Amino acid sequence: MSQSIAVNPDRLLPADPGTRNIARSLLSRVQDLPILSPHGHVDAAVIEQNTPFPDPAALLVSPDHYVTRLIHASGVPFDRLRAGGATGPRDVWREFCRAWPLFEGTASGYWLRTQLVSVFGVDAELSADAADASYDAIAARLAEPGFRPRELFKDFNIEVLATTDDPLDSLASHKAIDADPTFHGRVLPTFRPDAYLNIAHPAWAGNVERLIGEAGDGAEGYAGYIAALENRRRYFVEHGAVSADHGVRTPATLKLDPAEAARLFDLARSGQATPADRDVFEAHMMYQMARMSVEDGLVMTIHPGSFRNHHEPTFNAFGADTGHDIPVATNYTEAIRPLLQDFGTAKDFHLVLFTLDETVFSRELAPLAGFYPAVYLGAPWWFLDAPDAMLRFRSAVTETAGFSRSSGFIDDTRAFCSIPARHDASRRIEASFLARLVAEHRISEARAHELIVDVVDGSPRRVFKL
Amino acid sequence: MSQSIAVNPDRLLPADPGTRNIARSLLSRVQDLPILSPHGHVDAAVIEQNTPFPDPAALLVSPDHYVTRLIHASGVPFDRLRAGGATGPRDVWREFCRAWPLFEGTASGYWLRTQLVSVFGVDAELSADAADASYDAIAARLAEPGFRPRELFKDFNIEVLATTDDPLDSLASHKAIDADPTFHGRVLPTFRPDAYLNIAHPAWAGNVERLIGEAGDGAEGYAGYIAALENRRRYFVEHGAVSADHGVRTPATLKLDPAEAARLFDLARSGQATPADRDVFEAHMMYQMARMSVEDGLVMTIHPGSFRNHHEPTFNAFGADTGHDIPVATNYTEAIRPLLQDFGTAKDFHLVLFTLDETVFSRELAPLAGFYPAVYLGAPWWFLDAPDAMLRFRSAVTETAGFSRSSGFIDDTRAFCSIPARHDASRRIEASFLARLVAEHRISEARAHELIVDVVDGSPRRVFKL
Amino acid sequence: MSQSIAVNPDRLLPADPGTRNIARSLLSRVQDLPILSPHGHVDAAVIEQNTPFPDPAALLVSPDHYVTRLIHASGVPFDRLRAGGATGPRDVWREFCRAWPLFEGTASGYWLRTQLVSVFGVDAELSADAADASYDAIAARLAEPGFRPRELFKDFNIEVLATTDDPLDSLASHKAIDADPTFHGRVLPTFRPDAYLNIAHPAWAGNVERLIGEAGDGAEGYAGYIAALENRRRYFVEHGAVSADHGVRTPATLKLDPAEAARLFDLARSGQATPADRDVFEAHMMYQMARMSVEDGLVMTIHPGSFRNHHEPTFNAFGADTGHDIPVATNYTEAIRPLLQDFGTAKDFHLVLFTLDETVFSRELAPLAGFYPAVYLGAPWWFLDAPDAMLRFRSAVTETAGFSRSSGFIDDTRAFCSIPARHDASRRIEASFLARLVAEHRISEARAHELIVDVVDGSPRRVFKL
Repeated sequence: MSQSIAVNPDRLLPADPGTRNIARSLLSRVQDLPILSPHGHVDAAVIEQNTPFPDPAALLVSPDHYVTRLIHASGVPFDRLRAGGATGPRDVWREFCRAWPLFEGTASGYWLRTQLVSVFGVDAELSADAADASYDAIAARLAEPGFRPRELFKDFNIEVLATTDDPLDSLASHKAIDADPTFHGRVLPTFRPDAYLNIAHPAWAGNVERLIGEAGDGAEGYAGYIAALENRRRYFVEHGAVSADHGVRTPATLKLDPAEAARLFDLARSGQATPADRDVFEAHMMYQMARMSVEDGLVMTIHPGSFRNHHEPTFNAFGADTGHDIPVATNYTEAIRPLLQDFGTAKDFHLVLFTLDETVFSRELAPLAGFYPAVYLGAPWWFLDAPDAMLRFRSAVTETAGFSRSSGFIDDTRAFCSIPARHDASRRIEASFLARLVAEHRISEARAHELIVDVVDGSPRRVFKL
Repeated sequence: MSQSIAVNPDRLLPADPGTRNIARSLLSRVQDLPILSPHGHVDAAVIEQNTPFPDPAALLVSPDHYVTRLIHASGVPFDRLRAGGATGPRDVWREFCRAWPLFEGTASGYWLRTQLVSVFGVDAELSADAADASYDAIAARLAEPGFRPRELFKDFNIEVLATTDDPLDSLASHKAIDADPTFHGRVLPTFRPDAYLNIAHPAWAGNVERLIGEAGDGAEGYAGYIAALENRRRYFVEHGAVSADHGVRTPATLKLDPAEAARLFDLARSGQATPADRDVFEAHMMYQMARMSVEDGLVMTIHPGSFRNHHEPTFNAFGADTGHDIPVATNYTEAIRPLLQDFGTAKDFHLVLFTLDETVFSRELAPLAGFYPAVYLGAPWWFLDAPDAMLRFRSAVTETAGFSRSSGFIDDTRAFCSIPARHDASRRIEASFLARLVAEHRISEARAHELIVDVVDGSPRRVFKL
Repeated sequence: MSQSIAVNPDRLLPADPGTRNIARSLLSRVQDLPILSPHGHVDAAVIEQNTPFPDPAALLVSPDHYVTRLIHASGVPFDRLRAGGATGPRDVWREFCRAWPLFEGTASGYWLRTQLVSVFGVDAELSADAADASYDAIAARLAEPGFRPRELFKDFNIEVLATTDDPLDSLASHKAIDADPTFHGRVLPTFRPDAYLNIAHPAWAGNVERLIGEAGDGAEGYAGYIAALENRRRYFVEHGAVSADHGVRTPATLKLDPAEAARLFDLARSGQATPADRDVFEAHMMYQMARMSVEDGLVMTIHPGSFRNHHEPTFNAFGADTGHDIPVATNYTEAIRPLLQDFGTAKDFHLVLFTLDETVFSRELAPLAGFYPAVYLGAPWWFLDAPDAMLRFRSAVTETAGFSRSSGFIDDTRAFCSIPARHDASRRIEASFLARLVAEHRISEARAHELIVDVVDGSPRRVFKL
């Protein structure tokens, strides 16, 4: 029997014995529910083609910026964390095993340990000495015929998995999966137009030109741009998308009249827009995205507050998503107001607000979600989807907004094999939070049993229209 | 015997058995102390005239924006939450009962459940199916002759209840109550001049004209305005007021020379003040309010940081205080400095600072209250007067400012029947916090017994000069 | 046997019995480790000359602004808290004893009580009635021959104590201590150039002139200034310094070209720099300090976010460091970026970031320290180095950055006799935090035993290059 803490049945549950007993009972209600993952970054083609997983390093280390960032902080350059040149996958894995103690107490460490034991059957703690042994064990598992994305999709009990996609993506993989009668999960695209809305994005001008050319109904300029966005959103809806996602620096929104919007758009395309012009135009486009969501029914999700690519030399050498997106203070109340003035009570409009700045949980998000029918509290995200942070989130928002106004858990991951560990951790934390309220006689135990099912299963179905 | 969690003797107390035992013992010291409510929104006329309470919906649902906001968020339009036209009180009550599960885990849910059981004798959980039964039970209770404001005032063991009043209010009700030898509670007015200081307030110009006309000693313009404010404050003091309250967007303060203040005042009255002019003038008036407090002894309380009437369509249709006042980030350190430079150590000046932004608890309020004799920490307010938030407050401020620098509990409510539940909850949380410090050997149990009495009873008497 | 909570072996440990048992075991691993104090404000001359401590009031009350501020807040003027004129040390001590109940629950109260019992043998609680008795007991202890700085340094088991020093200090005391074969502790200087970098500092112009004159290698102006700073840093390094410390209003950094820097420097010396000029120049000098740290190896520590001398009348009467430095909101992500662009991955550069604004723990500091090899999380500081705040810190940063990226405890004190109490409290909190993670099966108990030794002993040695 494994002695790893990763399989302890009480992991993440509260220490107080009475509260733990309640939490165990609550957890048992939801442990076998299917996984609903309405926002994440797995590639649909991997599911479609049932691509075998690569080697342990390329699967678990190199692409995961949660992992590489902390190893980088310990002084290991990134080129030793991705295979290439003289560096082989075993070298990368050895670096990772050497760095393993750094992950104690982190969310990444928790997910990794849980995966290693539950998915890969590696019970022993990782260590530099035994790096090759763990590498071989995982590699052997990866070579097993049953260890493919589609089989794991079923083993993991995933019911819905949303991907994140470029607006001009053909969605060919989604179509193929959907058309395959032998595959029973749902793999849904998500419309993510950042690189078409953010003028400062290096690809913006080219993207916009392609967008208008391919989907603008023959219209030019701003009119073509808006029409093309509407068309592509409709295309996504037709192929199963339930949401449109927006990664922005600030949640600013603004309604411009069309002539002014067109003027700024043309200015931007001519390369003459000032930073202030760009901010105004982008705020207007957030307003337009909401307007389109009201019309086409896509749930609108906003992920603001990250200063992307903080370290330019690393960006130049290794590209984006390499672990140096750093949060900044976020303010929603005034920024989101123009959008909510017009759409905050619009029928069937769902707007899910995320944050990397915990201070807005109690100050802004719970009050907004506690009034506007459209607004839902996004689950703790990125640096905050960890046990203590998730408990702080529930503590901060529940007393104002209750349980009905939150989105349900979002794993937001590109690490397919970590999905069960992440959802399991979230369920344990929901059970822990509710168990405390029961122990403090703030909620009856019977009601808590209903609530945990609703939080884990009902909320994501309702909020994301699954 | 009722099985409701609302009457569990250990409700809100910590789960750990040893800590809970200490908390029980601490709580027993203060459970029977009289209620001191130095800030709230009950109407004095209701006490004076001993007005019977209206029907259950008009008493417990329609006027309580904590309640209606969350039902509104679930998609119920406001016109179904207030009787009128085809909608009767029973319809409103049914909507409320249907929505009751939304309130699990919220502060409002806690207060409502406690009231229903302890004040109205309704032990069964509310439900849509039994809506009419609970309506009838409450209506029957409301019809009992002993169920009137004055009788409840005594039953609730209220010693002091402060109201919130317009500066030109005659205070007739307060005078009548005070003159009545058969009524033994104290009902104190509070001077609240927001609508006379906030230039953007729709009634400002008219208010100012009336104010100067009625109380300006015949002086005109700014001189008459200042004189009138001083006169009306004196009138309030003569009729028992202990504090002046200020609801402001930011806690900015500023000292202008009188000529400049007069110039801006005239500009505002002529409708030509810019937003910047208005901000400057209002900051100056906060300074003036402090100056007057130093002179007349009224405790100054500041409630900043709420963006009022966030959703204009709702404001236009249903008016103010309908649940969409949303907090914004607040900064006190620099804003309040001009005031504190001159009055921070003024003899007998008490300045109670509230916040909707938890981040200022440890960062600004505890350090300010831990140095300035005038500054007191306002109790957690509005979205924050809930069990977990109150514990976060104590944890955030105590290590810097101890227990002596906080205001004591403020219920801030217009819901008269919720007053005992709110004060009881606060006492339970104070007992819980102190019990943890005792369990961790940070405070002796003997000293904790003294502290809880001081926190519940001594602090409000001292800080509000009761 | 003393009954004081100050000697309870379980003080500060968690109440849950199972978690407490784990914490006890963890604590036992580090209770006897030597004290490493890499940042503080003890005067080296006191160690060098083994100066007897003054009377109880001058030792424990008057110079400690943590203590005097809270007594001041209770209404006692500062002149009654320092001996002089008609006020003797016993009068000051009596004021302090009268005020003693104010400190319940505060960090200062905890340190004082612990010192009184453990260092001075005063077991009875302080009280106004017994003020003279406690004064006499402490005074008697102070008169004992073994009660001198050097003897206590050994009794306290201090291995390293860093002081904070003016750049032009001769470091004579440090040299003498180092040269004394009978003294075995290490007393290290710290380079603190605030009064040479902050143009608004009243002594800036004179300081700069002296600096260039004494250490500028004959160069004039900006070139001489930079050379002199480099020279004095080298002098500090040669005499054992391991770090350079910077107290700044904001953590702004900026790289100017030398000509522009020289222009602003000359403008500042001529008294013509605008506030904006000063901000730019100071941000540039932070960048220069980092550049010099990269070259000379001094660890760079930044302590931002305090609005110094908030109450001008108190500053005018009693000087700086009198308890009215009040924190303001801090933002690191954008401010520190110019520095990190160039030096964030520089070899052997250590940059320790402190904050008085808890919101940056999870939002900015953990993400920065979790990517940049140079960045370390400064321990909770000033208003935040208290039990609950230290637990909030660990909870906020660990899930992103683990344990390896924090600086280890910093006592930051000028109160020599409080050093053991402060380090002991920190070790108890580290044990408490780790014990919870063990109880929740997030870390194995074996690994927690290694981690606590590393956190208490390994981190400060590594981060401060001791």
